[in-house]
Amino acid sequence: MTKYRFHHDPLHRRLLEQAGRMNGPDCHLERLVAADRRLDAFSAMGGGVFYDFSRQRVDESVMDLLFELTEAADVGRQFAAMAAGEKVNVTENRAALHMAARSFSSSPAMVDGRDAKAELQDVLEQIRPFSKAVHQGEITGSTGQAFSHVVVVGIGGSYLGTEFVACALEAFADKNLSLDFLANVDIHNFSSVWSRIVPEKTLWVVISKSYTTVETMANEDLIRRHMQAVGLNPAWHMVTVTSKGSPGDQGTGQELAAFHMFDFIGGRYSVTSAVGGVPLSLYLGYERFERFLKGAEEMDRHALEAPPKDNLPLIAALIGVWNASFLGYPQTAIVPYAFPLRKLAAHIQQLNMESNGKSVDAAGNKLDEPAGTMIFGEPGTNAQHSFFQLAHQGKAFPIDFIGVLNPQTQLDEGRFKGVGHQQELWANLLAQSTALAMGKPSDDPARSFSGNRPSSTIVVEDLEPESVGRLLAFYEAKTIFEAFVWGINPFDQFGVELGKVTAGKLRTEMAARNRDEAHDFSEVDPINRRYLQMLFNGRLD
Amino acid sequence: MTKYRFHHDPLHRRLLEQAGRMNGPDCHLERLVAADRRLDAFSAMGGGVFYDFSRQRVDESVMDLLFELTEAADVGRQFAAMAAGEKVNVTENRAALHMAARSFSSSPAMVDGRDAKAELQDVLEQIRPFSKAVHQGEITGSTGQAFSHVVVVGIGGSYLGTEFVACALEAFADKNLSLDFLANVDIHNFSSVWSRIVPEKTLWVVISKSYTTVETMANEDLIRRHMQAVGLNPAWHMVTVTSKGSPGDQGTGQELAAFHMFDFIGGRYSVTSAVGGVPLSLYLGYERFERFLKGAEEMDRHALEAPPKDNLPLIAALIGVWNASFLGYPQTAIVPYAFPLRKLAAHIQQLNMESNGKSVDAAGNKLDEPAGTMIFGEPGTNAQHSFFQLAHQGKAFPIDFIGVLNPQTQLDEGRFKGVGHQQELWANLLAQSTALAMGKPSDDPARSFSGNRPSSTIVVEDLEPESVGRLLAFYEAKTIFEAFVWGINPFDQFGVELGKVTAGKLRTEMAARNRDEAHDFSEVDPINRRYLQMLFNGRLD
Repeated sequence: MTKYRFHHDPLHRRLLEQAGRMNGPDCHLERLVAADRRLDAFSAMGGGVFYDFSRQRVDESVMDLLFELTEAADVGRQFAAMAAGEKVNVTENRAALHMAARSFSSSPAMVDGRDAKAELQDVLEQIRPFSKAVHQGEITGSTGQAFSHVVVVGIGGSYLGTEFVACALEAFADKNLSLDFLANVDIHNFSSVWSRIVPEKTLWVVISKSYTTVETMANEDLIRRHMQAVGLNPAWHMVTVTSKGSPGDQGTGQELAAFHMFDFIGGRYSVTSAVGGVPLSLYLGYERFERFLKGAEEMDRHALEAPPKDNLPLIAALIGVWNASFLGYPQTAIVPYAFPLRKLAAHIQQLNMESNGKSVDAAGNKLDEPAGTMIFGEPGTNAQHSFFQLAHQGKAFPIDFIGVLNPQTQLDEGRFKGVGHQQELWANLLAQSTALAMGKPSDDPARSFSGNRPSSTIVVEDLEPESVGRLLAFYEAKTIFEAFVWGINPFDQFGVELGKVTAGKLRTEMAARNRDEAHDFSEVDPINRRYLQMLFNGRLD
Repeated sequence: MTKYRFHHDPLHRRLLEQAGRMNGPDCHLERLVAADRRLDAFSAMGGGVFYDFSRQRVDESVMDLLFELTEAADVGRQFAAMAAGEKVNVTENRAALHMAARSFSSSPAMVDGRDAKAELQDVLEQIRPFSKAVHQGEITGSTGQAFSHVVVVGIGGSYLGTEFVACALEAFADKNLSLDFLANVDIHNFSSVWSRIVPEKTLWVVISKSYTTVETMANEDLIRRHMQAVGLNPAWHMVTVTSKGSPGDQGTGQELAAFHMFDFIGGRYSVTSAVGGVPLSLYLGYERFERFLKGAEEMDRHALEAPPKDNLPLIAALIGVWNASFLGYPQTAIVPYAFPLRKLAAHIQQLNMESNGKSVDAAGNKLDEPAGTMIFGEPGTNAQHSFFQLAHQGKAFPIDFIGVLNPQTQLDEGRFKGVGHQQELWANLLAQSTALAMGKPSDDPARSFSGNRPSSTIVVEDLEPESVGRLLAFYEAKTIFEAFVWGINPFDQFGVELGKVTAGKLRTEMAARNRDEAHDFSEVDPINRRYLQMLFNGRLD
């Protein structure tokens, strides 16, 4: 562990000074972008992605210091150590080998004397024939009918990444299988899914590393009982994705198959493992899932090998830290001008906020200010008709615009006002980043635009499976690079523990009341006692 | 217009001092909530909703000053003036009569000598038989088949509110009509919708006040051409919701029916008008839409009549302003522990950010700091497995927790760990608000929770149509009360204009290139020129 501490490094003070300078009128974005060859100097291409930070509030002096910071923080070495299987998740003494899940090179990734890559490859070799057998009707439910519905039962990292990719590649789903998600313990979620499926044609994919996640286990229990109630054998309608030896692992006869996940891949980084692999291979076909992996691998190689000044996720991470910790923007919006990427923001919200929403560094020192960024977003142009009023005239916040050059569909677009739909979409994307940066003064304050509102533009050529993999890996690497610059551990999440413990105490109170109507919650604090009474009475008063 | 200016009022300085006091260790939420009868003193019930602000960082001194502020800002009079049809949207010289759309009392609401309520009532009287005739198969498409698919074609305020309510009441949708949304100009949105519908059984509801919204008109054009291409007469498959006399208004023979919307109801406040009324009456039946209106009306009456200290949306607005402008939280999350409310945050994101993301007050004075709050959210417990790590250990942000006492479904929940699903959900809701407020120290900094993280809890008894109406009207009134405290106009949105103008210029360039391949974009700034070249080449390089 290096002695580097983000807030105490001399570069931190120098960057704060630069931020002060940037807040001066000479550094308004209108001036910055007017510089010769601004885009050439403040953009990079690699891993199949174009990244433009010309409309971020940086200049060469700022970027030079930020690159110095990556050296002080030893970011490149840490990233390489992660790729090599070192236990970079220091608080949990684990490796972080999500990149091994999509590495098709022959080099091993050793952890505790085992080759993680070989173990991951074995799981892929199990997913491929399984998904094919389902598609061909060789594996069926308990009545012998082919599966037509797949429901992913999992929450958080067992859900959001797969949902993002499934939406992104919906246009490729030609296996006659619908894909649905049961994440929430809310009974409405089960009820809604149950109303859409045909039980005898449904395959439930239950995903939980420990097979003890309360939401997932409560839903698994409910599924088994409801399947039995309609005369089906749940074991023929269920597969699990779980740790070796967990209560959901194969051998108990309670499921068709079990696919392993490993402690060296955290939930929010797991979509390229069996967590995404099983449902996405069923929904899209294994070959497309593999193409998605290969896109991610391409970006991984770029992130590992490109020098800092050409390294897209590293630069994006520096911009992220600069905006959050120096310019003082606590949030960033992700606005893909691509309807298929409509679940990207929800996935990155988890990936980034759960990774980097931390108050201590990796060595256990309290940070002077918490790290992390609040992420939200909706697709453009929808977002323009929603929160962009505030983006233009309220408190400024940085935006990641995402553009796609070639749409997935060959549908005739027609011409409206002389342009096609795809062109109209791009006119809007470019107009927003331009208007936010440049602004426009007016004598009427209500119609005045101060501009100087930063954004990046990320472009991919298409939305083939590879491109979706590239985008995923870009944001994963960006998140991790940010963490390394802040000096934090992006792989643990102790912040979710207190809520779990507190819920457990309240659950015990409820269970006591379920057993004994006279149980009066006298041990519960007065506020929660009132709520428990409301809940058991079913009335507000 | 009053002379009140938010940042210059003496109360502003006094509230800032209170915020300084609140940041001291004596005012940690752990201490505040321990006070006797904390919940009684810091909660209110009305309009069918329970609102608990006991875990907000306020005490009696703070609340007293905030209530004084409502008097200084003349908030009650402004709200009453709005309800009476005064032109409170001063910059556009318009009334703001969304409450008239759900007012079933006999009193008129006069605007420019016309009774707005009577006009709105006329539209309802048109929606009721129309939706019934569709349900009964009396109104059909051009092949005589009954409609089975309804697609709302509209964006922003013509989309988000209806989507929220449709999701919330999905369990009541028994009319054998699916409901889909085509908002985005992105060709993938059309392609995705088109792949799901059966054209001869589809009714398109095109919603645009001016009937010039680019996205909606481009999609309307595409729909007409695609319907014609499959041999259908689009006029038999389309209704419009638009202004009287707009290009989409009845009489041209281009649609089955036209339902009017009015300039005295802004888009983001329009879900209780024909904008929501037509699609929701088709999806749920008119009677349920009317029940939804009656719930909204109940909250409206509460907002109008309850004294400030009992007035839920007013108190919620004061908390909103206190958090944003005094405690310095620029964002708030909305986390409904109710899967049917999964689109609430997206709707309120638009409603609140487009209304209050402003830099000038209603009199045209530049504000010292922009107003408004960034809103995001996901349902609980999903959110716990996503961004709650940051909520507990990163930068703090206020949260609106929403709980529902009785679920919509009577589905057997079973017992897992001794509790049902609905109980598990509530255990989590209460645990999160508790843990965020109280925190928990630890010798291990990585496992330490600082607490003092504010939240409100909003409870409704059920998710019947009335309750959804109450929640909608609560957030509408809260948004407007916030605006009145800040002294801004929540009904205009000049901030979206610059982007539109800029997009128009880029569209013209694209259209020129479509006409002439030699058009070289030489008039375009170098950054956008590069993108236009990429787009027309279809390649990154």
